[in-house]
Amino acid sequence: MPKYDQYEGFQVDSSATYTTFTKRKYDTKPFGDYDIELKIECCGVCSSDIHTINGGWGRNNFPVTVGHEIVGKALRVGPKVTTVKVGDRVGVGAQSYACLDCRQCNNDNEAYCTKQLDTYGSIWTDTGLISQGGYASHIRTHEHCPLVRNGAGPGKKVAIVGLGGLGHFGVLFSKALGAETWVISRSHAKEADAIKMGADGFLATEDKDWNVAHKMTFDLIISTANNFGAGFDLEGYLSLLDVHGKFVSTGFPEESKLEITPQMLGPNGCSISASHIGSRKETLAMLKLAAEKGIKSWVETVPISAENLSKTIQRLEKNDVRYRFCMVDYDKAFGA
Amino acid sequence: MPKYDQYEGFQVDSSATYTTFTKRKYDTKPFGDYDIELKIECCGVCSSDIHTINGGWGRNNFPVTVGHEIVGKALRVGPKVTTVKVGDRVGVGAQSYACLDCRQCNNDNEAYCTKQLDTYGSIWTDTGLISQGGYASHIRTHEHCPLVRNGAGPGKKVAIVGLGGLGHFGVLFSKALGAETWVISRSHAKEADAIKMGADGFLATEDKDWNVAHKMTFDLIISTANNFGAGFDLEGYLSLLDVHGKFVSTGFPEESKLEITPQMLGPNGCSISASHIGSRKETLAMLKLAAEKGIKSWVETVPISAENLSKTIQRLEKNDVRYRFCMVDYDKAFGA
Repeated sequence: MPKYDQYEGFQVDSSATYTTFTKRKYDTKPFGDYDIELKIECCGVCSSDIHTINGGWGRNNFPVTVGHEIVGKALRVGPKVTTVKVGDRVGVGAQSYACLDCRQCNNDNEAYCTKQLDTYGSIWTDTGLISQGGYASHIRTHEHCPLVRNGAGPGKKVAIVGLGGLGHFGVLFSKALGAETWVISRSHAKEADAIKMGADGFLATEDKDWNVAHKMTFDLIISTANNFGAGFDLEGYLSLLDVHGKFVSTGFPEESKLEITPQMLGPNGCSISASHIGSRKETLAMLKLAAEKGIKSWVETVPISAENLSKTIQRLEKNDVRYRFCMVDYDKAFGA
Repeated sequence: MPKYDQYEGFQVDSSATYTTFTKRKYDTKPFGDYDIELKIECCGVCSSDIHTINGGWGRNNFPVTVGHEIVGKALRVGPKVTTVKVGDRVGVGAQSYACLDCRQCNNDNEAYCTKQLDTYGSIWTDTGLISQGGYASHIRTHEHCPLVRNGAGPGKKVAIVGLGGLGHFGVLFSKALGAETWVISRSHAKEADAIKMGADGFLATEDKDWNVAHKMTFDLIISTANNFGAGFDLEGYLSLLDVHGKFVSTGFPEESKLEITPQMLGPNGCSISASHIGSRKETLAMLKLAAEKGIKSWVETVPISAENLSKTIQRLEKNDVRYRFCMVDYDKAFGA
């Protein structure tokens, strides 16, 4: 009998072979008093998954099952769990652990807990096991959204740079929060979709003087751009910000850097920041808002399999998706 | 009779000859209804003066009299002036014009007015004359401080990077505002001075693990660093910031850039910004605080002359000053 309980999932074995997924069983963390065990129903595909398995964000622990946009049903809940009962439909995001006892955790900033662990690729300190994500049969364990924290709401003018998977959520939530919402993209290719999603306006950086009419009018720019290379017009974006406006990157490119000078930030006293994931409190508020406003994501569903995972991440690398891939049919891959 | 009134000052004729000052007369803007004419008493020497005359900040208009930390006596006030009367002692800062009618101006953000002009080196749009600063007999016309706007105060922990002219003001004002105030410097050379100025602590980046004990404990870091080259430990500084803490550069280096990635900003959701000058409202609050708390700057006074200006800016370029030069004895240079 194995020392640990086992789950089954699609794993990647090294960054050199990151487009090859192998279905296999692996050990999972011991079931704790506060744990929830989920049978996974479906899982979104995020570029973070690719940055992790291809090594672009640096060394990772292998073998790993990625996927951190997980929805499933609670099969089992620990004796101290109060928020979920067996049979509930539950989401799991990118974070799997925080100490819940430090100053950050006590301040609803558990995403900034120095002991936080990611949903996949982190090492559980008690067992040395690697945390494993959502392209799998089951999981034990939380989640994101930067708009609220950065002040999007009625009377605010918000721009979303990049209309990909994350960007399309940005538009939907910014509008649901009541902010005037614009999309900034390189070309006009996604303009019609942006308007369908509810965007109030669209700017294409390939247009001459694209930023001129909007200088110093935006309160917040959320950049979901996945690289800062050619076509990423940082000075143009910053010029759009009102006094003390914020540019917040939710994209975490692999190699490219932003080169900034105080001279670029001084004319409007704007700031540049980044956001990884939100707190549990924010996540719950986000879900409540989505339910109340009937937010529907634009998803392309793909039956989960080793072959389809490989094809899907390669299509995502080419931005060939409108707008988020979601792996489904878990029953067919792992049994009911 | 010349078309314009004339003042006398020490001018620089080109960036190639920026250490050579020539005393001469020049045209000054027509006296407006809201203008104040000052006979200058003394003027502080800021690195901005050097960045301007040496061309490091880009093209400037020559010939120019620099100096933007001006104190003098009001000789004449325009018919619509209500804040100053003849004989008052008046200060003039780095800004000489704002429209006072746009959204920024109406929101006490006149430093961000798109029509703002600098005290020196800007072109008056009505006459085409170049604005001229404080190393001169007289001037017609406002001023700075970023701490208040960025939240320094009781219960906050503030770090000042670089203990030069601006940095020493940072320590004095941060303490006066009631914040726990630390100085971060490359070496321990200025530690005793920092403590005399009231600093609560001192960190030297040359020390091994200098930042470790203070990670995620600072609310605000004001960087006065004048270049971002070797020894400027941006990642170390950012690691000191608490969740959503702010790094604000008040230094505007000439060439060097900050290379940043979202990965550097994500762990604490910190932001990077810059501040040029404050509003009139903030300036008045700053002066009131200085008077109430008895803030005394640490100044080295130098009699104004072409030769002494040349020597002074060359000493400032080598950071050979404790802590601010102030040009004095204007009567001897320009007559009583």
